[in-house]
Amino acid sequence: MKTQFIPETILYTGDQLCSHWAYEQYDLQGDSIVSFVGPCDVGKEKLVDLADRKRNKIIYSESMLHFIVEHFDLDLEKTIFRQKLLVVILMEKLMNRLHSSVIQRFGDDLFDGDRKLTVSIATLTPVSTKIHAGINISSQNTPVKTRGLIDYGLDPRELAEAVMNQYEVELMQTLMARAKVRGMP
Amino acid sequence: MKTQFIPETILYTGDQLCSHWAYEQYDLQGDSIVSFVGPCDVGKEKLVDLADRKRNKIIYSESMLHFIVEHFDLDLEKTIFRQKLLVVILMEKLMNRLHSSVIQRFGDDLFDGDRKLTVSIATLTPVSTKIHAGINISSQNTPVKTRGLIDYGLDPRELAEAVMNQYEVELMQTLMARAKVRGMP
Amino acid sequence: MKTQFIPETILYTGDQLCSHWAYEQYDLQGDSIVSFVGPCDVGKEKLVDLADRKRNKIIYSESMLHFIVEHFDLDLEKTIFRQKLLVVILMEKLMNRLHSSVIQRFGDDLFDGDRKLTVSIATLTPVSTKIHAGINISSQNTPVKTRGLIDYGLDPRELAEAVMNQYEVELMQTLMARAKVRGMP
Amino acid sequence: MKTQFIPETILYTGDQLCSHWAYEQYDLQGDSIVSFVGPCDVGKEKLVDLADRKRNKIIYSESMLHFIVEHFDLDLEKTIFRQKLLVVILMEKLMNRLHSSVIQRFGDDLFDGDRKLTVSIATLTPVSTKIHAGINISSQNTPVKTRGLIDYGLDPRELAEAVMNQYEVELMQTLMARAKVRGMP
Amino acid sequence: MKTQFIPETILYTGDQLCSHWAYEQYDLQGDSIVSFVGPCDVGKEKLVDLADRKRNKIIYSESMLHFIVEHFDLDLEKTIFRQKLLVVILMEKLMNRLHSSVIQRFGDDLFDGDRKLTVSIATLTPVSTKIHAGINISSQNTPVKTRGLIDYGLDPRELAEAVMNQYEVELMQTLMARAKVRGMP
Amino acid sequence: MKTQFIPETILYTGDQLCSHWAYEQYDLQGDSIVSFVGPCDVGKEKLVDLADRKRNKIIYSESMLHFIVEHFDLDLEKTIFRQKLLVVILMEKLMNRLHSSVIQRFGDDLFDGDRKLTVSIATLTPVSTKIHAGINISSQNTPVKTRGLIDYGLDPRELAEAVMNQYEVELMQTLMARAKVRGMP
Repeated sequence: MKTQFIPETILYTGDQLCSHWAYEQYDLQGDSIVSFVGPCDVGKEKLVDLADRKRNKIIYSESMLHFIVEHFDLDLEKTIFRQKLLVVILMEKLMNRLHSSVIQRFGDDLFDGDRKLTVSIATLTPVSTKIHAGINISSQNTPVKTRGLIDYGLDPRELAEAVMNQYEVELMQTLMARAKVRGMP
Repeated sequence: MKTQFIPETILYTGDQLCSHWAYEQYDLQGDSIVSFVGPCDVGKEKLVDLADRKRNKIIYSESMLHFIVEHFDLDLEKTIFRQKLLVVILMEKLMNRLHSSVIQRFGDDLFDGDRKLTVSIATLTPVSTKIHAGINISSQNTPVKTRGLIDYGLDPRELAEAVMNQYEVELMQTLMARAKVRGMP
Repeated sequence: MKTQFIPETILYTGDQLCSHWAYEQYDLQGDSIVSFVGPCDVGKEKLVDLADRKRNKIIYSESMLHFIVEHFDLDLEKTIFRQKLLVVILMEKLMNRLHSSVIQRFGDDLFDGDRKLTVSIATLTPVSTKIHAGINISSQNTPVKTRGLIDYGLDPRELAEAVMNQYEVELMQTLMARAKVRGMP
Repeated sequence: MKTQFIPETILYTGDQLCSHWAYEQYDLQGDSIVSFVGPCDVGKEKLVDLADRKRNKIIYSESMLHFIVEHFDLDLEKTIFRQKLLVVILMEKLMNRLHSSVIQRFGDDLFDGDRKLTVSIATLTPVSTKIHAGINISSQNTPVKTRGLIDYGLDPRELAEAVMNQYEVELMQTLMARAKVRGMP
Repeated sequence: MKTQFIPETILYTGDQLCSHWAYEQYDLQGDSIVSFVGPCDVGKEKLVDLADRKRNKIIYSESMLHFIVEHFDLDLEKTIFRQKLLVVILMEKLMNRLHSSVIQRFGDDLFDGDRKLTVSIATLTPVSTKIHAGINISSQNTPVKTRGLIDYGLDPRELAEAVMNQYEVELMQTLMARAKVRGMP
Repeated sequence: MKTQFIPETILYTGDQLCSHWAYEQYDLQGDSIVSFVGPCDVGKEKLVDLADRKRNKIIYSESMLHFIVEHFDLDLEKTIFRQKLLVVILMEKLMNRLHSSVIQRFGDDLFDGDRKLTVSIATLTPVSTKIHAGINISSQNTPVKTRGLIDYGLDPRELAEAVMNQYEVELMQTLMARAKVRGMP
């Protein structure tokens, strides 16, 4: 599992969910989690989430902290569990920094009261499964009520590094957990 | 996914991790999550966790709220992700009831400061994968510093029902999430 | 497993084998079996079956009862077994209604003597596996000798509901059968 | 896929569901279907079917035609589909010989009216999945109302060979069907 | 597993890695290994190997012996092991004919000292996994230092038949090996 | 992947094929390859290879270099490919040191003319797959004609380290190879 924070601003368009994006852009070969800051603007035809597409939902944010994960297996159900784990880690890291339980998870989204903090999707490519999770930095001009890291006074990069390190640790624990239990009859 | 709270007190010995326990005892056929209250006393030879066995760790509690989960597939890695999800749900339900972020997750365990609240393991049988998660009700006479539901004034059964319902909902969401995304190139 | 009979006439072209067709058209999310009545006209370039394409086989019927099945896993071999099961259910429901064993199955096709009743294929998409099975309503103007439901005096919708209900029941039984056997040494 | 009819009379006790039975007894290495004639007497502790065990069901027949199938993979769900296919083949071969649709399938059992013809189970071993299907030859002294091949004047061995050949053909078709379809978008 | 040597000269362009190539061109349905002689000229946009594409590596040979393998499952990791096995078989058959250990394998490539003999890749399609392995016949005008079968005085077709037969035997052994071991506790 | 050479002499009895042996004995958690020197004496009832057991084959050597591999997945076919790779690596390392192509592989065994050098088996446990490969150090008093490392003047530990390092490298390459290819249509 390779982790990397990209310091350049990158517009998230959904193209980052294509296979090998991290390899082609940043030479990260194999399973990886990459993070960067940038606006989010996914046109309808780029929407991976067909439920959003049906409802003409707009995914837009002036500035978000993005995570792009790629696992080179084809078990989408397993990657949806990994996606939940990534969102949970994000929630926990926020709560630790805010010393508050105000952040709540509904499915794969985080909320502060009725204000939405995140977007997230998991999908698959011909060779891998991929996750996008984004958390608002700015809460300005969003199509629904939101809050962002600026509202909490949190540093995106510090948060990104903490989330990526924890994600890497948890996946390693998962592999190790598999290797420490005897079978039952 | 079947869910059931068993009102009788049951001693948790590790035998509940055998395959078909819920079917043989409670006629719950198929994937299930069952909950009950009872002491926890797992002898060394019954320990599923070889890391615990190597360190002669004792798993003992006068009274715990137990969850026993069975999924009829053989992907232990996936069930370890489900185990993490179950522990997260337990954490979230505690925080909602306590209006506090004092509960923290380290791997598959929940803590309140340096006091341990839970035990948990995932393993497999010849026909299924299984999870046990237990949260202390009593914090008396435990081998390490603990807290329990009594210390928080929480009702085990109400918590159990909330956790089981949420687990069922999240697994259903997982299946549905798999069915709403288009593949990427 | 969701089941639905669509009362509108729909031209079957092969496009119904694309992923999420039932979700996008009828809001059926997850595994589903959908049935409708309509002509069948699959152009050569739409043929999924490469054996048919090599032999320039034409798939055409003035009116058929169609079944479209989608399972959100990627095990094509398993879905070919499901396809066989669907064709068998269709055979059994016909025999029950005709009180006769005149209908015979050869591979995935049903025949009445040398007259062909059905077409069927199983394939996969990036996110799912899919089945199409169609049984002639009309036996007029077909490229090979056929019989259809009109020839038997059978009501398409009644048959469709019976087949879909039985398919749903059998898949549920399959899940339950997995959960009632102990492993052998 | 190896097929073999064993001409000796063999008592079916459930032990034939152990892994490698065909290899150890008849030197058939790899996937196989074996058939033989003999009584059926499965003691409660040998019952693989926990539903039967719970209901104290007795599996007894003075003489049955037995089929033992072994597939060296661990996907029990897939083998339950194969089991359904085996039972369907048995039904079809009976109907062809009886020129009648009197035989009906309910789940994995065949009936003639209210008389039961067959028993069947699918399970797994540490290295394989296994199927047992048995059809009564004698209908005398059975715990429920039954019919057997004697009642129909059918030759067990001829039927066995036809069933095994058809099973082998259908599994080969399954592999080939997987290799003749293009993927859909 | 079907094996076939195609006596016509065929230009290898990478298109042979598409699914069903052996079926559409040579009517070989199911798992297959096909061999032929011809130049190798893979344009950059046809490169399957993204590492090569990043480095602008040219894959060019005036004449090569090519092997195209297709397996109708979707486990790319397993097919990468099969690819290694194919390259090993090629190495062993060369050494047997040369009575020398001068041929060495580095990863999936064969070398004679600093001269490269082979190219190889494994990838997947929507319905199958595929392998290409090519060994130089001519060593003229190659972008890197190479040796070819002409330099060793070896007959391509004789080598091709030996390699394909051995590949088929080893895959059969693999299936049989799976069926001769008891499980361990 | 953890690799370790154990300097103590250990009698190989087949018990080392049990799950978690490397973890329980040497605290190596997760996938591992362990090597040690010691006699080989596997009683008939410990034989994992049922083909050997049927033929009353004796597995005995006064001194062997042993490799024990454990992978925490349940795909025995894949581990049989890994076993072939391990035996190939052993062959290649021998040839490099002997500057000779005298060593030949037949299936999973290495030979020098008609003298056998190795034994090897792959099997599975409830939680993992395992490989044993052993190469004779002594060729004295073996039940068949053998050669051993002493006959070649090779140092077991040096060979063991080279083999284990190469095995680790090749498995890493396999993971990386999976992550560098685009899918084909």
